[in-house]
Amino acid sequence: MALNPQYEEIGKGFVTQYYAMFDDPQQRPNLVNLYNAELSFMSFEGQQIQGAAKILEKLQGLTFQKISRALTAVDSQPMFDGGVLINVLGRLQTDDDQPHAYTQTFVLKPIGTSFFVQHDVFRLALHDMCDDDPPHAYSQVFVLKPLGTSFFCAHDIFRLCIHNSA
Amino acid sequence: MALNPQYEEIGKGFVTQYYAMFDDPQQRPNLVNLYNAELSFMSFEGQQIQGAAKILEKLQGLTFQKISRALTAVDSQPMFDGGVLINVLGRLQTDDDQPHAYTQTFVLKPIGTSFFVQHDVFRLALHDMCDDDPPHAYSQVFVLKPLGTSFFCAHDIFRLCIHNSA
Repeated sequence: MALNPQYEEIGKGFVTQYYAMFDDPQQRPNLVNLYNAELSFMSFEGQQIQGAAKILEKLQGLTFQKISRALTAVDSQPMFDGGVLINVLGRLQTDDDQPHAYTQTFVLKPIGTSFFVQHDVFRLALHDMCDDDPPHAYSQVFVLKPLGTSFFCAHDIFRLCIHNSA
Repeated sequence: MALNPQYEEIGKGFVTQYYAMFDDPQQRPNLVNLYNAELSFMSFEGQQIQGAAKILEKLQGLTFQKISRALTAVDSQPMFDGGVLINVLGRLQTDDDQPHAYTQTFVLKPIGTSFFVQHDVFRLALHDMCDDDPPHAYSQVFVLKPLGTSFFCAHDIFRLCIHNSA
């Protein structure tokens, strides 16, 4: 099968459709129809899953109530079996958690006039899982009062810049 | 061709070998041997490139002198043509630039007893590249002076929290 010249539109269209379903708890179980009973692989935060039934189980086990996301980049490439490789870079936020960057890769395999998801790799971009704290911005205000020929610090306000949106 | 049960080792081994070559300016041009003259696609920060010659051109056009990186996750899946899908999440630093998170996806295609890189998608995790300015933290200090029964703002210092490391 030849390269599909529509790979760019297919990639963007698929991602839009997939996340519309994923982000709506009512529709999320219907994602199972995008996977093959045997021939689909999912890696979810390093956990390997094969086949639509187990993938559905995983999707139904997600505990958050609401999710919002913003896509930074969707890179697609045509594959030589007529499929499409899609790489998504984005940010998502579940419930009241902090927003996180994430990456998700899909391989769409052609079947008849449509596609199924043959490969799906998801990772939150959590790089700071180290023992030491990450660096933080901070803000500090001093008010110096004159005292003789010098000054003393009459006020000192210190805050780490830890924002709800950071 | 069947699934390769060694996909995990192949993925990790490939990534180790690839980055050892990539990160050494002397060896970097040899990466061209991992790509096919016609059948390899690279997406580099959204730029689409096909074929080993143009990929080599891209690699040789990289201007940094030194690069260091740390891998956060390497997720591999076996493919039904005997190939391997590899998704890398990591951080890299070039010269004196700030470190950046990045994601890179490889599809290895079997050829004889070895593989070539059929697909390669690279993205720095720069999420703030949008048309509208990204939100910024800021710090503002007011000093209120009493004036009759009220106050006036005697001092007002405003700074966006734009750090060299942000």
